[in-house]
This record gives sequence, C-alpha cells and structure tokens, in this order.
Amino acid sequence: MPSGDGGESRTVRVACAQIEPAIGRNAANLAKTEEWITRAAEDGVEIIVFPELANSGYVFKSREQAMALSEEIPGGPTVTRWQALAEEKNIIIVGGIDERAGETLYNSAVLIEPKTVPRVYRKLHLWDQENRYFEPGNVGIPVFTTRLAKIAMLICYDCWFPEAIRSCALQGADIVCIPTNWVPIPGQVPDKQAMANILVQAAAHSNSIYIAAADRIGIERGQKFIGQSLIVSYTGWPLAGPAGETDEALIVTDLPVTAAKAARAWGEFNNVISDRRPDVYAAAAAPAPVA
Amino acid sequence: MPSGDGGESRTVRVACAQIEPAIGRNAANLAKTEEWITRAAEDGVEIIVFPELANSGYVFKSREQAMALSEEIPGGPTVTRWQALAEEKNIIIVGGIDERAGETLYNSAVLIEPKTVPRVYRKLHLWDQENRYFEPGNVGIPVFTTRLAKIAMLICYDCWFPEAIRSCALQGADIVCIPTNWVPIPGQVPDKQAMANILVQAAAHSNSIYIAAADRIGIERGQKFIGQSLIVSYTGWPLAGPAGETDEALIVTDLPVTAAKAARAWGEFNNVISDRRPDVYAAAAAPAPVA
Repeated sequence: MPSGDGGESRTVRVACAQIEPAIGRNAANLAKTEEWITRAAEDGVEIIVFPELANSGYVFKSREQAMALSEEIPGGPTVTRWQALAEEKNIIIVGGIDERAGETLYNSAVLIEPKTVPRVYRKLHLWDQENRYFEPGNVGIPVFTTRLAKIAMLICYDCWFPEAIRSCALQGADIVCIPTNWVPIPGQVPDKQAMANILVQAAAHSNSIYIAAADRIGIERGQKFIGQSLIVSYTGWPLAGPAGETDEALIVTDLPVTAAKAARAWGEFNNVISDRRPDVYAAAAAPAPVA
Repeated sequence: MPSGDGGESRTVRVACAQIEPAIGRNAANLAKTEEWITRAAEDGVEIIVFPELANSGYVFKSREQAMALSEEIPGGPTVTRWQALAEEKNIIIVGGIDERAGETLYNSAVLIEPKTVPRVYRKLHLWDQENRYFEPGNVGIPVFTTRLAKIAMLICYDCWFPEAIRSCALQGADIVCIPTNWVPIPGQVPDKQAMANILVQAAAHSNSIYIAAADRIGIERGQKFIGQSLIVSYTGWPLAGPAGETDEALIVTDLPVTAAKAARAWGEFNNVISDRRPDVYAAAAAPAPVA
C-alpha cells in the first residue's frame, strides 16, 4: 500500500485487467471495464491498465466498422465514463481506444487521471490489418507526468522495437503501460513463455524501468489472443503474472516507483542508461538501405 | 550439413565452445581452444565461437597483469595459432582476446577466417573493473563479410544495449557472435533462465537475426560465471543450448543463413526492420539529459 509520505518509500499499486472485449459491443465493453475498475479500486489499485482497443474489440470486418465503433478523445462515451470513474474511485485508468479524429482513425491508448484532461498516445507501429483501418500515430512517444509517476504508453507491436521503450526511458518514464492484443506468432515453442513476455522482460531489464502489459483473451472471428498479461520489475522479472492464456484476470502489484531509476547505476562504474554510446550507434541507426 | 550449392538451402554449422579459461595460463588456454577446435572440425563445424578473454582469463589482479597477459592482433600467440588452425581445419574461429595495441588494452573479439587477415571488434560497453584495465572500443560495430555469412561480434555487456544488436542488423549481419563472460546479476530468479539468455532471445527475435553466445564457466578469484551458452534462431528460440551452468560443453546447430533476413517480412504489411520509425525515435535517442 502507498505509504503516503511522497518520499523514497512510496509505492504505487498497479494492476492489469486482462479482459475479453467483444467486437462491436462497445456498451458491454464499457460496462465490463467499469466492473473491473470498481473491483480494482476496492483493492486499493491506483493505476489500472486495460488491453488494446478495449472499447471496440479488435477484428474489424471493414474500415467502416472500425469507424462506426470509434470515439473521440475527449468526448466519446468510454473516455467520458472513465473520466467520471477516475474521479469517483480516485484511480488512474489506462486503456486502448479505437479513436476517431475527424475522418482519421488511430489505434490509441488513453491515460485518464482525476482532474486532468485525457492524455493520448497513438500507436506508431501498426500490425497487419490495422494498416487498413488506422493511420500511424502522429504524437510521437510522449511521457506524461502524473501525481503518482511519469507514465508512457505503448501498444502491442510497438514493443517489437527496442527503440520505443528506450525512448520512454530516455524521457524519464517510471512506468510503461502497454495495452496489447498479443496473438500467437510463428516459432512460439509450446509450454514456453510467450515471446511477447520475453520482449517485455528484456526491455524492462535493459532500461531498468517498470512495464505493465495488459493483454486480452478470447477468440474473435477466428483470431486467438494469448493473455499472459504481466507486470515486470526493472530487474526484468515479473512481479505479477504472467496471467493465464484463456481467462479474464486482474493482476496486481505494488511498485516502489523511484527504485527503478535508482537501480540504473550498477556498482562503481556502470549505469545501464548512461553507458549508452549513441555516438557509435548513430551511423547505423540512421535510415539506410538494409542489405 | 552444408548443401554446398551456395543457394537458398545453404546451411552453416555453428558451434559455441563453453570453456573455462584460467587466469594467467595463456598457453594452457590456447591448448584448450585447440582441443575444442579439433573436435568441432571433426563434427563438421564451420564457425566456432569461444568466450570473452579466452586467451587470458577474466579476473585480473591489476592492470599490469592485464597487460602482461595481453597480445597483439595480428602477431600474438593465440591469434597466430588460431590462424594456422583455421587454415588447417577450414573453420572460422571467433573468440575473445585481451588485446594490446601499443600501451592500450582492449577487451576484443577476433574473427579468424582462412586466408584472410584477422578482423577485430573492440568491446564498446565495458563492465565494472574492466574500466580499470581497458579502453572502450574504437572501431565502432563492424560487420564482416565472410565466405559463409555476414558476421558481427559483440561482447557480454554490449548486449544490454539493444542499439548494439540493432546496429549489426541494420548493417546486414546474418549472425552476431558473442564471446561473453556472464556473471550472476541482481534479481535473477533461481531455476529460471538467465536474464542474459532472455536479452539474447529478445534481440534475435526483434531483429530477426541469428545469435551465437559462447559463455565461460567456473569460479575465478571468487567470481562465478554462469555458462548457459546458446545459439538462437531469428525466431528468438534457442536452436542449441542453453548449455549447463557448470560444465564445459560444445553446442552445435545448422543455421539456414538466408532464412533470417527473409523472415523479417511478416505477412502483407509488416517487416520488423523496415517498420522502424527512426524519425520519431530520433529526438529521444539523441544524447540528452536523463530525468
């Protein structure tokens, strides 16, 4: 539980709600998130993370459907209700939204903090059919200062790009919240931890940063989602989860927020962030033909 | 075994020799590598990777000792003998060398190919006491074209920086060979795979590249090394290893070299390399104060 002193010992109770949104049933999806927010708040949760596209479901049959199920931020029904719930429960809510801005759709994540305008991240790396419906994000990789921690958001396939979580760390994020809809991938070894989990563990460790990844479960129009939501310490080891592959679940842990950055210094000589050598990476990292 | 047709079906037999070098016993260390090279060549191995500082051992008691145990590239006894063995056995040898260049020492990796000058990578990210003995590498992150594959080398702590393996991938490497001396780290969970293995798996997967990491074993002046050498496919899953934590071992697998780059394209829309957004990462990745 939070110590309430605002000092070094302050912990923040973080949860991921691994749920099953249903495509096209936005009102039911919103009601479901309200149930989990209520339950989490009763457990003292201060930050709750929901999956990608939690308002709408994932497997659209057309761009028209993606448009029909979208909402504006702020102003849409899910975000408006989440704002009220955040106030009422004194909780920060992060979740994925099928976002409409004029005629453009984004696969977005929203951060709802009491008494604060909703803050938005728009998915930068679009996966597969998402390219038919959404535009790539146009707000960069922002880090938001909240009353509890500096929070960044990434979505699903973004985590395949180590540069994305590195960008969060370099900009001072304490926690990266990841609404996601992980699907089975080629090469996955049965009974081994999901490669998506391994990517998250490696990113948390090599950046000494907390990561809370909320996945969905279920099968939608034949597409399976793999669950296994987890909250990972800066060490790279899970503090909560991985959750199961098939059931809804709430995973909860208390994060000593300031510990992650403090742990970037390893012994007398090393710091896993400042030991970087961008002067050397630069030439290779610049856009260039790939052999 | 290699198909010998040079076409798409060409595989390369790669091995990691997980050995225990002994500090200060350079002649014995060289003799040991010769034994493993001979055995590997009998098994049809075409590329063999040895650990970090395989000529000298790791835990120096002083810079003077690090200097006394160093050798020049080319010209030093280990590299000269490896050149002869590479010719004789028709094998590519990669391994870690305590390298002297004038009065400067580098923690280096050398790539010995028959009928080719030795090629060198010098460790960029120095770990702990290495900072007392070595200078950071001054040759960037080169990728070398060999008759079998494009090969890059990184060493141990380099792999804590996702930018390093990304640099190899962007420059067209097929295989990253990693001489390493992994030590136990804070937060490691007993009976779980080593975090170093997880970093290697994530890097291989997110770059769709092969990685062969040869660790050492043993305890040297109280410092334990953790073994668990592995050769990872572009999928992120091990093809050989992880080896055990305490015994010398040779792990071997056949890599279909061209498959890794081909697998970077995922479906109609995605490519795990070209989907990068360096235009967005750039601002954050530039050297800047870290909050």
